[in-house]
Amino acid sequence: MEAFRQAVVNTLERRLFYIPSFKIYRGVAGLYDYGPPGCAVKSNVLAFWRQHFVLEENMLEVDCPCVTPEVVLKASGHVDKFTDLMVKDEKTGTCYRADHLLKDFCKEKLEKDPKITEEKAAEFKHVIAVLDEFSAEELGSKIKEYGITAPDTKNPLSAPYPFNLMFQTSIGPSGVSPGYMRPETAQGIFVNFKDLYYYNGNKLPFAAAQIGQAFRNEISPRQGLLRVREFTLAEIEHFVDPEDKSHPKFSEVANLEFLMFPRQDQVSGQSARIIRLGEAVSGGIVNNETLGYFIGRVYLFLTYLGIDKERLRFRQHLANEMAHYAADCWDAEIECSYGWIECVGIADRSAYDLRAHTDKSGVPLVAAEKFAEPIEVEKLVITPVKKELGLAFKGNQKMVVEALEAMGEKEAMEMKATLESKGEVEFQVCTLGKDVTIKKNMVTISKEKKKEHQRVFTPSVIEPSFGIGRIIYCLYEHSFYTRPSKGGDEQLNVFRFPPLVAPIKCTVFPLVQNQQYEEVAKRIAKSLTAAGISYKIDITGTSIGKRYARTDELGVPLAITVDSTTSVTLRERDSKQQIRVSIEEVASVVKEVTDGLNTWNDVLWKYPTHSSAASED
Amino acid sequence: MEAFRQAVVNTLERRLFYIPSFKIYRGVAGLYDYGPPGCAVKSNVLAFWRQHFVLEENMLEVDCPCVTPEVVLKASGHVDKFTDLMVKDEKTGTCYRADHLLKDFCKEKLEKDPKITEEKAAEFKHVIAVLDEFSAEELGSKIKEYGITAPDTKNPLSAPYPFNLMFQTSIGPSGVSPGYMRPETAQGIFVNFKDLYYYNGNKLPFAAAQIGQAFRNEISPRQGLLRVREFTLAEIEHFVDPEDKSHPKFSEVANLEFLMFPRQDQVSGQSARIIRLGEAVSGGIVNNETLGYFIGRVYLFLTYLGIDKERLRFRQHLANEMAHYAADCWDAEIECSYGWIECVGIADRSAYDLRAHTDKSGVPLVAAEKFAEPIEVEKLVITPVKKELGLAFKGNQKMVVEALEAMGEKEAMEMKATLESKGEVEFQVCTLGKDVTIKKNMVTISKEKKKEHQRVFTPSVIEPSFGIGRIIYCLYEHSFYTRPSKGGDEQLNVFRFPPLVAPIKCTVFPLVQNQQYEEVAKRIAKSLTAAGISYKIDITGTSIGKRYARTDELGVPLAITVDSTTSVTLRERDSKQQIRVSIEEVASVVKEVTDGLNTWNDVLWKYPTHSSAASED
Repeated sequence: MEAFRQAVVNTLERRLFYIPSFKIYRGVAGLYDYGPPGCAVKSNVLAFWRQHFVLEENMLEVDCPCVTPEVVLKASGHVDKFTDLMVKDEKTGTCYRADHLLKDFCKEKLEKDPKITEEKAAEFKHVIAVLDEFSAEELGSKIKEYGITAPDTKNPLSAPYPFNLMFQTSIGPSGVSPGYMRPETAQGIFVNFKDLYYYNGNKLPFAAAQIGQAFRNEISPRQGLLRVREFTLAEIEHFVDPEDKSHPKFSEVANLEFLMFPRQDQVSGQSARIIRLGEAVSGGIVNNETLGYFIGRVYLFLTYLGIDKERLRFRQHLANEMAHYAADCWDAEIECSYGWIECVGIADRSAYDLRAHTDKSGVPLVAAEKFAEPIEVEKLVITPVKKELGLAFKGNQKMVVEALEAMGEKEAMEMKATLESKGEVEFQVCTLGKDVTIKKNMVTISKEKKKEHQRVFTPSVIEPSFGIGRIIYCLYEHSFYTRPSKGGDEQLNVFRFPPLVAPIKCTVFPLVQNQQYEEVAKRIAKSLTAAGISYKIDITGTSIGKRYARTDELGVPLAITVDSTTSVTLRERDSKQQIRVSIEEVASVVKEVTDGLNTWNDVLWKYPTHSSAASED
Repeated sequence: MEAFRQAVVNTLERRLFYIPSFKIYRGVAGLYDYGPPGCAVKSNVLAFWRQHFVLEENMLEVDCPCVTPEVVLKASGHVDKFTDLMVKDEKTGTCYRADHLLKDFCKEKLEKDPKITEEKAAEFKHVIAVLDEFSAEELGSKIKEYGITAPDTKNPLSAPYPFNLMFQTSIGPSGVSPGYMRPETAQGIFVNFKDLYYYNGNKLPFAAAQIGQAFRNEISPRQGLLRVREFTLAEIEHFVDPEDKSHPKFSEVANLEFLMFPRQDQVSGQSARIIRLGEAVSGGIVNNETLGYFIGRVYLFLTYLGIDKERLRFRQHLANEMAHYAADCWDAEIECSYGWIECVGIADRSAYDLRAHTDKSGVPLVAAEKFAEPIEVEKLVITPVKKELGLAFKGNQKMVVEALEAMGEKEAMEMKATLESKGEVEFQVCTLGKDVTIKKNMVTISKEKKKEHQRVFTPSVIEPSFGIGRIIYCLYEHSFYTRPSKGGDEQLNVFRFPPLVAPIKCTVFPLVQNQQYEEVAKRIAKSLTAAGISYKIDITGTSIGKRYARTDELGVPLAITVDSTTSVTLRERDSKQQIRVSIEEVASVVKEVTDGLNTWNDVLWKYPTHSSAASED
């Protein structure tokens, strides 16, 4: 596993799929650049995301700034709760994540201490399992109990305390307007709900989407490209009537079958199993059709990209993992050398976010369902008689009025009955901390019939959120393999990217360095540009086998070798099969295959196959 | 002008091309969201940029983080010099840009003070003209002289002082690693020069490109979408041998003719004039072919997008505008209601940036030209005899050695001659601040012949840098027009976006609400999706005229009206011409026009024209 990862990462770094950022200055932990092939892969993945989600579902795409004023993230809860627990080396001030230290200690004991008792082993395993739930106090007392010290210096550690993971800054020159680099793109959509709802003709459901950078000032980044301080998110906020979470297109995904890992199965110690999506929804495993629809669409998105479906599962959040307001939550987890990694979160967040911003901003972020005909409803009406209450309670009048108005239907109707039968009633006013006596002339309570023309409500939001960098890293691992060179003396690296993802669709090689072949290569290059196909031309004198190996390592699906002035050899990366195609046709054949109109097997039988000793190595 | 701008901005804001960010919290100056149509326009502009520059020129695209450690921006000069001069209201602490206040004062006097003398008027005009060159002291003394006070309170103002425009933050939890949100994307490319040069097979010239967010913490943002605190840049760094700045494809742009505004013409008070690009380069107005090539490519890019070529000029920087290291610099300026706005900067920055990072990091960012055959060169060799120098100068030995080694060829050869003739020489050692006597036995100086296999040098960089938001805003103004409604009772807004830019390519309207037409509309919608065309379907019962008006206001080039079950009406936005096309064909006709394979005029004569009283209004 470690060796496999090392082989992938070496290839990625050597071929500039990624580069540790600011390398000449010894870099910054958790920051990476995408080099040319990585940048092309990312741009292909994002273009496909746009096609698969935004265009096919007619979503409203928006683009909001990264710099965000404090009030927005105060409302969303990030200012108060977006923290990790940290401990400090008491002498040097170096910071560590408290849970990491405890986890590493337990793992080390389990793996390397032969004298460990069975009882102790069980305890360490238990700690690792429940670690994520520990409070600052619990973490601190375990660290003390085990005598854990700073890993670099063995100095004593401070007690754990929360560190906010947002990059803080200041907006404008005055220094009095704190701001943060957004930790997710979603808030930019929520605060625009009103305008977007209007743009959609005041109709639900609709979805808004955003692709953009997000930032988390990790305490100590680990796991290479998986846990970074700046990353690209692609998020969808699908707004829906909480009373109707059906989806008109659910039938299109209902028959998909894939690995799911429901909450129950996790609790009872079972493994993920293949479930038909339609059954998961009808059986109540997945909360509703819309959530189910997105799970299906995410499955299709990831597998089209080339994620191995045997190493992809949808895991339901346990009750204690889920925010209190969430109705249901599933993670698309992809297995790679680091284990099962959360790459897409798909959550039904109910009305939480819109309510939070409604409360903080005072702007109602609500939707309305207009009734075809007005509906008659009975409404409770409580009218305190302020004059009488004033006479009776003087300075306390306001509290009594508020308490009366705040009564629920049951309480109010009971009061009404008592007042009618007895003329007065004892009434508890919490804000006064005592009971008062309400007389019949102090309040009128009634039920009135009203005609309502619409129902006003806060929509629920279903949020699929994609960590693009994580998906791409897992894709690298799932696409990588090695095969022996023709001589058998070395292992060659290959990325089996589908054409959709491949950074370059095709390479053009003159077989030998001569002017005629180079001119043909240039003609072909021109026709490839005209067809909108990204290609690379290699006119170095390197052996053709070496040039194939270079291009396989970049995951280029097709290679054109110019070996005559009328026709060329077209070679497919994984099968290494070769066909002969005329110079005039070759760009359109490449386009058919890379656009997905035909597969390689479709074109294979149409053209003469080619075999040449010179072709490989 | 003001009224025109207001009409454009109202339309843009009402149709959500953009939205002031965090509007429900009363917004933040200088931050804007792109709403759905604006986001689509931006994504079309960026896709075309990638096609026109990255793909057609085989550039190496990279994607670096926004968070940047201090050392990088220290090397680039941003930490010390990326500032604006600011004054503070001495009582409230409110901040203002010093040059803005002075400019506003002079303008106000010129426009609104009828009693102003001719002499004073000339002075104010002069101040406005040279304002950008004022030092903090000069600005301060003018503000004092004119008695300018804080505009909001009339309180006295502080003296001007520099405010750094970068958003500052802190990387990691310790608080000891300052970082900034990048003010440009270019630095990410420079620090990767070595890897990118290697990726390109150690060959020059090559270009790297990057699209991404950049940040400037403006003191007081003005001019709406033109001066913002976060924006998208698209930058190219073209690395070239300083001894050969020719460009193999220059002939392809040499015959372009457009408005240029050379330095000389500005100084002598002339206007911009039409110059053939080839002449500008051969006549030495533009410094070199590569710079000229990019000027031509930028011209093509902007005019393809729909920028009016009569309101686009290339203005050369005056000597005092240009950085001391720059060889030449031209701005693509677009005229809009705010005046001539710099939208693309095209600068030959010589070797400045690579040298700065070489010096700071210690990593040589250089290129090498391998000679076909080794070249014999004479090299100066200075060998101080440390033993003798040590005896003579004791503790000062090191300084003397360094000074000897640092001698240039001329100085060294003169010393050699003097030593040979007189046996000793007076030699100034700057670091000691005095002359010392060097004797013949203390140093040997000679010229030796060496074979050199390569020439090592720091490449020059030519940098076209695009402010995407500014280009898009100018495009909105250049594309906007109004025309009377059919009844003549109101003015309707239209954006004449080319299909390339249009946020949606086509709309689909059933003429009247009935199930048959709606089914046809859905069939057409499916075929549009399959063809990859973004569309909007409108099945509201609104009059067809109103629906056309709505879609014209979004700049949608084509509209399909379903008015039978076999064929439909296809209408072009600007001409309002209509043709009848069969349901089967309509998607492919739309695709031909929106992909630019055919113009509307090409398809117009192929199909029967349609005229119907019901069609408009």
